[in-house]
Amino acid sequence: MPTTAPPPPIETGALVIGAGPVGLFQVFELGLLEIRAQVVDALPYAGGQCMELYADKPIYDIPGLPYATGRELVERLQKQIAPFDAGFHLGQQVRAVRARPDGRFDVETSAGLRFVAGAIVIAGGVGAFQPRRLKVEGLEPFFGTQVIDRFDGDDTGVADADANAGESEATSVFAGQRVVIAGNGDAAVAAALAAAAGNGKSRGDHESAAASVTLVHRRDDFDAAPAQLQALAAARAAGRIAFVGGVPKAAVIDRGKLVGLTVAANDGTTPTLPLDRLYALLGWSPKLGPIADWGLALEKKQLVVDTERFGTSTPGIHAVGDVTTYPGKKKLIVCGFHEATLAAFAIAERLHPERAQPLQYTTTSPKLHRLLGVAPASAPADPPL
Amino acid sequence: MPTTAPPPPIETGALVIGAGPVGLFQVFELGLLEIRAQVVDALPYAGGQCMELYADKPIYDIPGLPYATGRELVERLQKQIAPFDAGFHLGQQVRAVRARPDGRFDVETSAGLRFVAGAIVIAGGVGAFQPRRLKVEGLEPFFGTQVIDRFDGDDTGVADADANAGESEATSVFAGQRVVIAGNGDAAVAAALAAAAGNGKSRGDHESAAASVTLVHRRDDFDAAPAQLQALAAARAAGRIAFVGGVPKAAVIDRGKLVGLTVAANDGTTPTLPLDRLYALLGWSPKLGPIADWGLALEKKQLVVDTERFGTSTPGIHAVGDVTTYPGKKKLIVCGFHEATLAAFAIAERLHPERAQPLQYTTTSPKLHRLLGVAPASAPADPPL
Repeated sequence: MPTTAPPPPIETGALVIGAGPVGLFQVFELGLLEIRAQVVDALPYAGGQCMELYADKPIYDIPGLPYATGRELVERLQKQIAPFDAGFHLGQQVRAVRARPDGRFDVETSAGLRFVAGAIVIAGGVGAFQPRRLKVEGLEPFFGTQVIDRFDGDDTGVADADANAGESEATSVFAGQRVVIAGNGDAAVAAALAAAAGNGKSRGDHESAAASVTLVHRRDDFDAAPAQLQALAAARAAGRIAFVGGVPKAAVIDRGKLVGLTVAANDGTTPTLPLDRLYALLGWSPKLGPIADWGLALEKKQLVVDTERFGTSTPGIHAVGDVTTYPGKKKLIVCGFHEATLAAFAIAERLHPERAQPLQYTTTSPKLHRLLGVAPASAPADPPL
Repeated sequence: MPTTAPPPPIETGALVIGAGPVGLFQVFELGLLEIRAQVVDALPYAGGQCMELYADKPIYDIPGLPYATGRELVERLQKQIAPFDAGFHLGQQVRAVRARPDGRFDVETSAGLRFVAGAIVIAGGVGAFQPRRLKVEGLEPFFGTQVIDRFDGDDTGVADADANAGESEATSVFAGQRVVIAGNGDAAVAAALAAAAGNGKSRGDHESAAASVTLVHRRDDFDAAPAQLQALAAARAAGRIAFVGGVPKAAVIDRGKLVGLTVAANDGTTPTLPLDRLYALLGWSPKLGPIADWGLALEKKQLVVDTERFGTSTPGIHAVGDVTTYPGKKKLIVCGFHEATLAAFAIAERLHPERAQPLQYTTTSPKLHRLLGVAPASAPADPPL
């Protein structure tokens, strides 16, 4: 009988935990120092808080960007770091970190991915975003089976994570199912449309729609892209999606199965919606998560770092951005960019103590031009500033 | 006989010394904390090194700007800080700083401008840019009279400084003068064209050209805007501007007057160019300047600062950007932006110890929206992140 060996771990100079703006810029600064990075984030897309909390809201205080939405900032940073070809591993959390005898770290994610990393940078923002839990008595045991708390089907407009094969089950087989969806964001709308159209992710059963699709939310007010909202309005007008205004109150269970959700409706009634599958898509909220258990010095749930290397209490593990604390710390993106810069130099020194790391400028350094993949400036190079 | 009282000093929350990118962003961060700033710079235009050394060269490492020239970065920052209406006082250096009994500072510039400032931020970059000195034996005594080391006539394409009335003498009365110009940049080309056309800055004598105009430079290779280069070629073809390829070697003096410049020409000859006025326009080079004499702690000509408040050894005087040193310091613009941010919070605390300074976000704070002059976001405000 053949045995399946687990895939070998990914060896990397630096592992960046967190794909928010600071984690993305960390990739850039490491890249300029010739250190390739792998990035892990709990969200299924890059951008962290910028995408989750203010994708379409303006940011005014990024130097040189008088105005940018969270999404624009993230797109700009993604473009900027593209030359460094970092590996992105989204929709998963770093679970375990163990120091190795050789000074590197063994790392494992919630999706079973393994790394051997020369250094780690925790660019953890306010923590790992986790699906916000729908708190209804009796529901807890059904999470992961009948209750699904994330949806990243093709209709969400969200980039697919690269390791979401395990998700297919969650978004598949709408056929004949009674589907109830709690939530009013992108994901809730996308799930409702997918269920109503029958285009879930199941293999070989793409065409059959759910038996019923009901959206539940306190207000009849959905937050999604205009095209999605239009499609939702059309599906509601056609009777393919129902809406109940109210708040989920109780799970109805029959012989160990979840069979209904009782709602305190806005009109004072308490209807029970029969269901086979409940999508609880209430957005994401941050939790420090497993990082709290790695033995790093903490102060009020923030990682204590020095301001020279942005190192934590464990040599080789650095931290940057909102997750850190030090005298004077302000939780601003502009500060995180600086922290990532100094952390990169400290990591370069750790990984390559034999190399000098003279400061070079992207304006004038032929070496940095090569790394960035840009043509050398046509003007004669300036002496170092 | 009436006596003229000197104008009263300008009272300001903060005086920023240096209008480079970090000085400009300092204005922004102070503005968000409701502190209006006055800015002084030795160069006749904002932008510091970014404008002087790489105005048209690319910068790749400003977070969120995958590519920008020095000029573009400066223009973006100027746009960003526009809501805060800082006063700019260019083409002059801060000469004297004295602590006042009330905790503020008396400040005076080389142009005689006076300030009373609650706090000072030295965003001094590599120092104050000063005109590069033409080193020729015997020339020194004539600087400021027959030898002129800056030209900012209307033709330079450079924004006029607001206090350059004193300059008019320097660029006036070409009529009948024999003008020699050493240099090959923007200013040299502009001065040659202005002299040849007779449009100097003197009042009432705009139309009369110089008797002769001679450009001297080692290489026949000028660095100016295309239109200027075209005009130069036309004037040379028409015989209105001469060119001598070579290096100035000696001053010729007759009865206390500078009457000629001897040049070691590239062809081996040593012609003497007769002259009434010599423009030595060799560009600008930075010097720490008077700051070195203010009694602030220095280390290798850098100002020693802490990383919490970016304060120097004198309370109330802060320093940010390339002029500073602290453990881990890297002379990168991205680091200066962070330093300016924390310095702003420290200054706010100094000036308004009674006010709490809770961190607010430009994305969500109605107060910051008001200060920035932007409409409040249409979406309901998020809770503080």
